[in-house]
This record gives sequence, C-alpha cells and structure tokens, in this order.
Amino acid sequence: MEKKDVVIIGGSAAGATASRAARRHPMVGKVTVIRKETRVLVPCGIPYIFGTLGSVNKNLMPDAILGGSELLVDEVTSIDRHNRTVSTVGAKTVGYDRLLLCTGSRPVLPPIPGLEKENVFAVWKDADYLQKLAETLKGAKGVVVIGGGFIGVEFADECRKRGLEVTLIELLPHCLQLVCDDQLSTDAESALRKQGVRIITSDAVRSIAGNGRVDYVELQSGEQVKADVVVVGIGAAPNTELARKAGLEIGEQGGISVDEYMRTSDPDIFAAGDCAEKYSFFTGKPVALRLASIATREAKLAVMNLFELKIRNPGTIGVFSTTIGDTALAVAGLTERAAHEAGFDFVVGEASALDKHPGSMPNAREVKVKLLFDRSSRKILGGQAYGGLTTGEIANVIAALIAGGMTVEQVATFQIGTHPILTASPIVYQIANAADQALAKMS
Amino acid sequence: MEKKDVVIIGGSAAGATASRAARRHPMVGKVTVIRKETRVLVPCGIPYIFGTLGSVNKNLMPDAILGGSELLVDEVTSIDRHNRTVSTVGAKTVGYDRLLLCTGSRPVLPPIPGLEKENVFAVWKDADYLQKLAETLKGAKGVVVIGGGFIGVEFADECRKRGLEVTLIELLPHCLQLVCDDQLSTDAESALRKQGVRIITSDAVRSIAGNGRVDYVELQSGEQVKADVVVVGIGAAPNTELARKAGLEIGEQGGISVDEYMRTSDPDIFAAGDCAEKYSFFTGKPVALRLASIATREAKLAVMNLFELKIRNPGTIGVFSTTIGDTALAVAGLTERAAHEAGFDFVVGEASALDKHPGSMPNAREVKVKLLFDRSSRKILGGQAYGGLTTGEIANVIAALIAGGMTVEQVATFQIGTHPILTASPIVYQIANAADQALAKMS
Repeated sequence: MEKKDVVIIGGSAAGATASRAARRHPMVGKVTVIRKETRVLVPCGIPYIFGTLGSVNKNLMPDAILGGSELLVDEVTSIDRHNRTVSTVGAKTVGYDRLLLCTGSRPVLPPIPGLEKENVFAVWKDADYLQKLAETLKGAKGVVVIGGGFIGVEFADECRKRGLEVTLIELLPHCLQLVCDDQLSTDAESALRKQGVRIITSDAVRSIAGNGRVDYVELQSGEQVKADVVVVGIGAAPNTELARKAGLEIGEQGGISVDEYMRTSDPDIFAAGDCAEKYSFFTGKPVALRLASIATREAKLAVMNLFELKIRNPGTIGVFSTTIGDTALAVAGLTERAAHEAGFDFVVGEASALDKHPGSMPNAREVKVKLLFDRSSRKILGGQAYGGLTTGEIANVIAALIAGGMTVEQVATFQIGTHPILTASPIVYQIANAADQALAKMS
Repeated sequence: MEKKDVVIIGGSAAGATASRAARRHPMVGKVTVIRKETRVLVPCGIPYIFGTLGSVNKNLMPDAILGGSELLVDEVTSIDRHNRTVSTVGAKTVGYDRLLLCTGSRPVLPPIPGLEKENVFAVWKDADYLQKLAETLKGAKGVVVIGGGFIGVEFADECRKRGLEVTLIELLPHCLQLVCDDQLSTDAESALRKQGVRIITSDAVRSIAGNGRVDYVELQSGEQVKADVVVVGIGAAPNTELARKAGLEIGEQGGISVDEYMRTSDPDIFAAGDCAEKYSFFTGKPVALRLASIATREAKLAVMNLFELKIRNPGTIGVFSTTIGDTALAVAGLTERAAHEAGFDFVVGEASALDKHPGSMPNAREVKVKLLFDRSSRKILGGQAYGGLTTGEIANVIAALIAGGMTVEQVATFQIGTHPILTASPIVYQIANAADQALAKMS
C-alpha cells in the first residue's frame, strides 16, 4: 500500500490533535505541520496566565504533542489545489495528498474609538503579545474587561486573583447570556461579585479615552471607568483567508464549509476547529461555537475520514465549563433560550445535592443540575451545572447522555457509580434526579 | 382515576428511592414504607464512620428522604399474596395494590472457627452494632480486616486514617481482584501500602484465636497476626427469606428473580436493590453485583413499571468507585477478566493525562484510563480509571458511553467540555485518547 502525505496548516488544538491522529493512521506516510508560531499557547489556559499560572511560559504546548510529525514554522500564503501544494512566506512549496486546514480564529474587535491606544489588548493567541499584556498588568491597578462571555469572565476572575481592581462590562443584561440561562448567569455574577469583580451589564463602551495610553473607558450610560489596562474579549471569528483565496466555500457563520465528514468543498481538503463551520447536533443548522474541545474531536473525525468515509459527525453539541473562584459552572447542549429559539417543546427538571455523602462528609460542596428534555421524543436536549469542581466532568456525563440520545426515563435510571468522597449519594444524584423531576412534569 | 396503594418493605437505598419515586407517581395514592431499623445508615458511608466521619450519627439517613410516605418501623413476617396484605411482628396488617421488596442484603460470614469471639465484627447495616464497633476501635491498636474487596479496602484505609495498625487479608492473589484487572489492583495495593496498610494476599484465615476476646488471627501459612479487633468484609448475600416464604422465585445468584421490568414471579410484587437478582447488560446472564447505585436505579425502574410497563431494564453495567488516601479508582462495565470469561474478542486502549491543564496548573493530578472495546460490534465494553478525585465522575462518563452503545470511533470523538482547572486538556482527554489507542490496534 502506497502511503499518503498529509499536510496540516495550524498547530493549536485542532492541528496538534490532527497531527497525533495522522501519525497513528495506517495509510498515512509523511505528516507535515506548518504553523506560524514559534511558541504555541495552550488556548484554554490563556486567561490563567494572568493569575493562577503567573507567566506565558507556563502555558505553552510542547512540540512533542505533535507526535513526531515534521514541523515547519512558517506561514502558508496560498494553496495550489490543482497541483496539491502549499506555498509559504519562507518560499517553501510542500506537496500533499490530503490537506487539513486548522487555521483557528482571531479575536473580534468591536468598532470602539480608542481601541488602538496603548495598554488596550485583545486576546490574540500570540505568546509575545500576551507576554506584553502580562508585563503591563504588573504595573497596573485598575483593569476593565470588555465582554462578559467565558473569556471575559475568566480574565476578570484571574485579574482579581492577583489583586487588581476589575470592572467587567457586558452589553447584554447578563454575563454569559449567549451560553447560559438567566439563573446560571445570575449565579455566575454572584460568584464574580464575591471575588470582588465589579460588573456592569446592559451598557456599551462608547470610547476608550486617554492621551496615547488608556486612561478611562467611557460607557453609553455616561459613566467613566478608570483603567490602566483594557482587555477586549467579545468573541472570535474564523481565520478563513487562506481558504477563501483557494476558492473554498464559506458557511453562513463565517467558517469554512464542511460536510458531515469534515471535507471542504474540495474533497482532498479537510477543515477542523475554529476555522470550520459547525452545525448543531439538535437542528443541523450552522452554529457559532468555537471551543478547543470541539476542535480536537473535529480533527480526529477529519483524520479518520481522510481516505475513506469512516464516521459521520452527528453535529456539535457544545459543552462549556469554567470556574469562578473555587466554584465551577458548565453547560452541555441547548439552554432553555436556545431550545425555545430552535422551536422545541421541552420540559425542565432541576436537582441539587452535595458532591459527597453523607452531608457530614468534610469539604462537601453543593452541585445543582438542570436538564431539558424534548416533550415529543422525550430525549435529553441539554444541561447546566453549578457548584463544586466535579461539575466539569458532570457536564461530560450530560454530554455523553445527549450523544447517546437518552430519553427522560433512561436518564432517570442511568447507571452510575457513587462514593462518599467522590460523588453525591445515589439517592439524590443530581443528573438522575433532575430527570425524575422532568418526568413527573411530563406524565 | 382511582389511586393505588403501594407498600415498600425496606428503607435503605432502594426503599428510600422507591418511596420518593412512588410519591411522585400520578397513579399512586398511599405509600407505606415498612422497615425494621429505627435509624437507617447511609450504606456507602459505613466504612467512613470509622475514620473520616468519626461517628455513626454522622452517617444516618434522615427520614425526610422518604419524601413524605407513611413510615412504619416494624418487621414484616409474611406476605399474603392472595389478599394482598403484609403482616408484621407488631401485629399490623397492611394492604397493598403493589408491593415492592427492598429487603437488601446481609454480610456473608465465612466458616472460620472463632468468628463468635468478642471484638470480631461483620459489616451489618445496623447503627447500634456499628456504634459498638466504633467504641471498640477506640481502645484498639491492631486491626485485622478479612476480605480485600471494596468494603475491606475502605475499612483498612479508614482505620489507618485514625492511626491503627491495619492488616488486610485477601484469599486471592490481589485485592479487588473480582472487580478490577491486575494493574488496577496493583495500583490500589501500592496506594494502600503507602497509607501504611499491611497487605497479605493468597492466604486464608484458619482461625480467630483468643480467650473469649480475639487475640490473634491465624493464617493458613501459619502466620499469627495480632489483633484487638477483627472486621470481616467478604461480601453480602440477598435477604430473600420473606420472598421465599411467599413462594416467589429465586435466581441462580440467590436474588429474588425479576423480569426486565423488575417484576417478581408475582406481577403485583416488584423487587429492587441488593435483594433482587441482577442480569448483565453485556450477556444477560445473572451477575452478583450489589451496589447502592444499582439499588436506586432499580427502585426507580420498578416504580415506573408498577401499573404499566414503561421502561425495560437493559441490564446491569456495574459501576464502582472508591478512594484510598487521596487517590480514587473506579471501574465501569467489564474488566478484561470478565470480558474474557464472557467470551468477547476485545481490544484495550489506555491513556493517561493530568486532570488539569497545562501541566503547570497547581494541584494537577494524573488520571489514567483504560477502555475495552468489542472487536466485532466495535462497542465499548468497560473502563477503569485511577488517579485524582474527578475519577468518580469520569467513571460515570464511561458508564454513560456504555449505556449509549458507543463505538470506538464514537468514543474517540465524543463531545466533551474541558477547562484548565476542571479537566485534562482536550488534546489528551483520557477517555477519548484511550479509544484512539484501541482504534489504532483495530484498524
């Protein structure tokens, strides 16, 4: 069997995972990863550089994670689809049998006057740039974070951990509103306030003022918030320039169009991660979800399908988790808001319990879980969790139940292991009991 | 609609859960729980009374957990199936439309001479009896634990936490051998030794010696192990006297025979929990699995099916988790040993990663995961995990994937949420990557 050459453009979550998977693939010969960055950041770790980790160097991915692929640090400028080669800034031409685009995303910059001022930073995944932010924060006292999504919330929490005065500004009525229902947003806001973050919602930034360097942020409400540093974290947009130049189709959410096998409009070119369009597991419609954990699975799906169609992508569920102080929150699948918008008739069940049992067990923490079930198919549509630090894996349990297409009866009676130090009691295990509550409303 | 009366015999995990579920059932009128115990212990918490919790009183289930059912503290002596009544020691007769047997299990006592001596205890789920054990341990120095299953391991670990000299004696070559593969058993033994437990395997107890009170335990090897207290924890057997007396069928593993809807051989009588026979999710054969987390799901299944067959029990997967010191271990579904015995041709994949990311994140702990996949159906058959305290919920993720009938490709690409403080990196997430490794061996 003649082995095939694979070229991967990009070396972050999707690119690194694709590289590892391609190296294990029996039909793959040479694997080349071409990436721009000398040093690659762990994407989810970025906010933690500024508090818990303390430095950019503690948040780097070792090149060993590529699993032994050839690494070319260079920038691809064009794809010659006819001859199946890519060309780089460094004047290299590299041939491929299959090409995988893992070009990621870049921060969305809002049209705010003053964004160009000194000490205003967006969340570029660039080690040198973020090192400069880290150094700037060392001399700072007050920080304004623009954007109350996951990135903004994590930056705010981490900046508080190092004692900075932090103001978080969100345009919508609640932080995390695009990904959580209001109760979970409210819980998150309480946790942030408890950490000492000042939160301003339903207000927009009119301008960033200062003489060369930022001095304060002026809001639509007229308030002026003093700031030594401004961090802008309002979202990310797919990097698709290379794909556009090569004539590949682009989807309605701005990602590179892919089919259920992660193939672009050119069957020899695949795309995975933030640069690729996502389609909802629940409705099939394009959705704007960009997460490292989605990138890694898409990379694996793409590599499995490179030469033969082996596995279909059932669509993106979307599973988020984060922490504020020592409290975790997580979302898997549809929120009530998203389920309404998609047109589902659904039932909600909620349950709360300690994460250890009996309740007298030392260091027990409350974890509450909310689940949504479709009334007609009775299948689980989504879940949210809030509380102790097992919440992250609890969200993954919910995600696995969603992927398995479990009904409300099946979730109420699904098989778990429980232990006094590790989980809630089996009598009150949150996921099963939230399903019980939904079931009582359905029958 | 005329409401129906339900009587539940037993008030531990199955009985309490059935009581709560029956109270929510729209067709149920009066619910009566009849149980012998004045005080009900949290079953999984029992070993923790003797170290972490410190007293029996910290390990009791409040009666409020019954969800408002009528509680009769009394012992049922017979069931009149013709007239649908039960009679008690206290001379009460209670009528039922549906009866649910949740009579639990009792410790198996090995035929060892000297078992009747003072300071020799079995693990009876009886608050007064265990309070006596707790008081006896206060004056003790050396403890011998007979049986290296979960109960024995947990007792040994907890007795060490209070500074006792602990010797654990297991008949088989390894602790936990009936539920884990050898590598996990070896890891557990290392963790126990690190805690200071002395472990003797492949040896049996010949007798318990002493003048009235235990003085030492004599082994087949001839060794005499000094002991102030002996704890016997070699397993549990279903309590089926009442069912036998009522002429209900008993299964080959000694539990009350039930169908896929938790009905006994009398369609008005259901059974759930340790007293009921279990059938394997993988082979359909009777299996000797007795866990509180199985009891609670069976109780819910039984209540759902009381008046109409609503949901089938797909069979018992078996999910265990425990801790030794600050390390957790867990098993879901089939081990290699069990899969071999059942006749499966399977492939194993293993992966290890820190439970936080990047690796420089404070307090990161290793968690390793091993998964088994059936070579012909490609479905996941089981998993084992060892490491940090999220291992308990990681086992529940594996259990949900097993219940969902996921293939190796689906597990390798299943959707997860990841976060620096809550989980492994998405690039090395253990469950997905163990599936990758198995996949590489299968293709």
